[in-house]
Amino acid sequence: MSGNRENQKNVYTGGLFDGEPYVSGEQPGPGVVKLNTNENPYPPAPGVLRALADYDGRQLRLYPRQDGGALREAIAAYHGVKANNVFVGNGSDEVLALAFRACFGFGEGYPVLFADITYSFFPVWCEFFGIPYKTVPLGDDFHLSAESFARPNGGIVICEPNAPTSLAEGEAFLDEIIENNGGQSVIIIDEAYADFCDFSAAAKTKDAPNLLVTRSFSKGRSLAGGRIGYAVGNQRLIEAIMAAKDSFNSYPVDALTAELGVAALEDEEYFGFVVDKIRETREITAERLRELEFDVTEPSANFVFAGCGSAERARAIFGFLREGGVYVRYFDKPGIDDRLRISIGKPEEMDVFFARLEEYLAL
Amino acid sequence: MSGNRENQKNVYTGGLFDGEPYVSGEQPGPGVVKLNTNENPYPPAPGVLRALADYDGRQLRLYPRQDGGALREAIAAYHGVKANNVFVGNGSDEVLALAFRACFGFGEGYPVLFADITYSFFPVWCEFFGIPYKTVPLGDDFHLSAESFARPNGGIVICEPNAPTSLAEGEAFLDEIIENNGGQSVIIIDEAYADFCDFSAAAKTKDAPNLLVTRSFSKGRSLAGGRIGYAVGNQRLIEAIMAAKDSFNSYPVDALTAELGVAALEDEEYFGFVVDKIRETREITAERLRELEFDVTEPSANFVFAGCGSAERARAIFGFLREGGVYVRYFDKPGIDDRLRISIGKPEEMDVFFARLEEYLAL
Repeated sequence: MSGNRENQKNVYTGGLFDGEPYVSGEQPGPGVVKLNTNENPYPPAPGVLRALADYDGRQLRLYPRQDGGALREAIAAYHGVKANNVFVGNGSDEVLALAFRACFGFGEGYPVLFADITYSFFPVWCEFFGIPYKTVPLGDDFHLSAESFARPNGGIVICEPNAPTSLAEGEAFLDEIIENNGGQSVIIIDEAYADFCDFSAAAKTKDAPNLLVTRSFSKGRSLAGGRIGYAVGNQRLIEAIMAAKDSFNSYPVDALTAELGVAALEDEEYFGFVVDKIRETREITAERLRELEFDVTEPSANFVFAGCGSAERARAIFGFLREGGVYVRYFDKPGIDDRLRISIGKPEEMDVFFARLEEYLAL
Repeated sequence: MSGNRENQKNVYTGGLFDGEPYVSGEQPGPGVVKLNTNENPYPPAPGVLRALADYDGRQLRLYPRQDGGALREAIAAYHGVKANNVFVGNGSDEVLALAFRACFGFGEGYPVLFADITYSFFPVWCEFFGIPYKTVPLGDDFHLSAESFARPNGGIVICEPNAPTSLAEGEAFLDEIIENNGGQSVIIIDEAYADFCDFSAAAKTKDAPNLLVTRSFSKGRSLAGGRIGYAVGNQRLIEAIMAAKDSFNSYPVDALTAELGVAALEDEEYFGFVVDKIRETREITAERLRELEFDVTEPSANFVFAGCGSAERARAIFGFLREGGVYVRYFDKPGIDDRLRISIGKPEEMDVFFARLEEYLAL
């Protein structure tokens, strides 16, 4: 690089983006038991694999539909809403990011409210877009109180079921949030894990025009590698998010993935089977952990949240599992640093997890 | 919707995003000659179609690599740089959006500079992120002058070859821009169309640490439906863009598309064939248009930019072509409202275009 020296004056020494990004779980290679990023242990539906095999790759020369096209229609039909009540994006992370930009920060400087222990991307998006925010503390039992959101705000975000606690608050809680908030701001419910519990607020958006529900194909639909997320809400909210999308990236969902998404929605039977299986394994996992004297919250997502007694012990178990090729997630954050988040795998993966855990306990 | 009435007080009437989004070309259904969004008329490489057929869809249950993984490595090898000099994103639009956020607007309020006639997404990204900008006028011949960028600035963006003019300024021009700018800001070269001309600034990033070059798989690589774009530059710039990405959406490139991208890079022979064919058709198209007395700029991209004499005539031709199922692009903007941008299709598609055009001329 002989040119380097003479071009020293062209070295830019000014500012660059130095925000604190979101840090997701590790993506180790094969050969490990991967219970750290809440992926579905089962493959996509047979109908998805057929759609993939039938796909004519020559079409990829053309841009995809900007609004999700047939996938948007299929999602709308699934939730019994109109296509213009649905926004489709590149995973629910992108949908949430664009929804934050489109719906928040327009009040008189009031902060957006969300729990202090919840999806840790929420504050990152606020920082990224310069949106003021304030966190609301969870109770000692990790549950949220609707009252704590009843204050002037520039928006409310609730992850339901919540991550990493796996706890659901349920319909009455959400009704109270909506009622208390009136029309003062937009309420976003992040339902990334709602496939694994009994309630979704999506239908509620028909009667609550300031309510936006975001969902993902990455968990229940086994399409984390394909990148599909969506939002359901009043047309006015959806149009604002669409405008934000078209001010950032016109075509975030690729053409092939959109077709696989349609096929995933069509295979309801397989979806039901997979979700039931994961819920069953989750209950068994929680029970076995409790028998081993871990403090497990009542799980409503595809992971359990296990208290280990102390931060030191949680870290030790995390490291011991990892050394044995079993990856779970540890958050070194006040209030939850004594806990592990364990994704629900296949029964045989959970057996490997417990075998390794029991090795630790026998030390 | 009986609930609507009683929930009127929950109608949010505050602000929502109302920025002016980028408007891309129409995506009509099949059965038309589509020369309006600069897609490649030829399908992806045979190696890409093989990779698609061989792909094990069961893997889609897992998240993709956050940094592009093997695709990032392959792009780095292609340009003779290291993987940490490459950022991979969801099309070059997303790469540019994140690069604007990561690299611009950190000066003492100096504006980012770009041409007044260039890719119309540039001002949209600035508005989206609140970055000050100022446009620099093109000359009467639609060419840029390097001198007009020689002023205090918070960044420079140049589309090379430029859109919608199809004109390239060449290496000496870029060297002058870099030299004049010193290290005061980051210079982004948007090379979405560089596959179709003789020069790329990508290698120059090794010696110019404030230079970032963005490129696309949507044009020369026939993968517009797959969504891959990338940036090549100094590691410090790439890390800042990576942090911006991880503050927005961790996994923007889907797992299957990333594999297809690797296969596309491997099939150099097909790529060369397709690009040569498009360049040959482009020259013939430009010549035929000139014979019909259109004022055609010297084309360096996969489209030509044809002056029609007046805005009225350009609009009339646009409408007449469209009615006959031939889609080209018209920009109703001062300075270029008398012109049409015509993507280069297969020779037989250009024959349909010319047959319809000659119908108009014979009216």
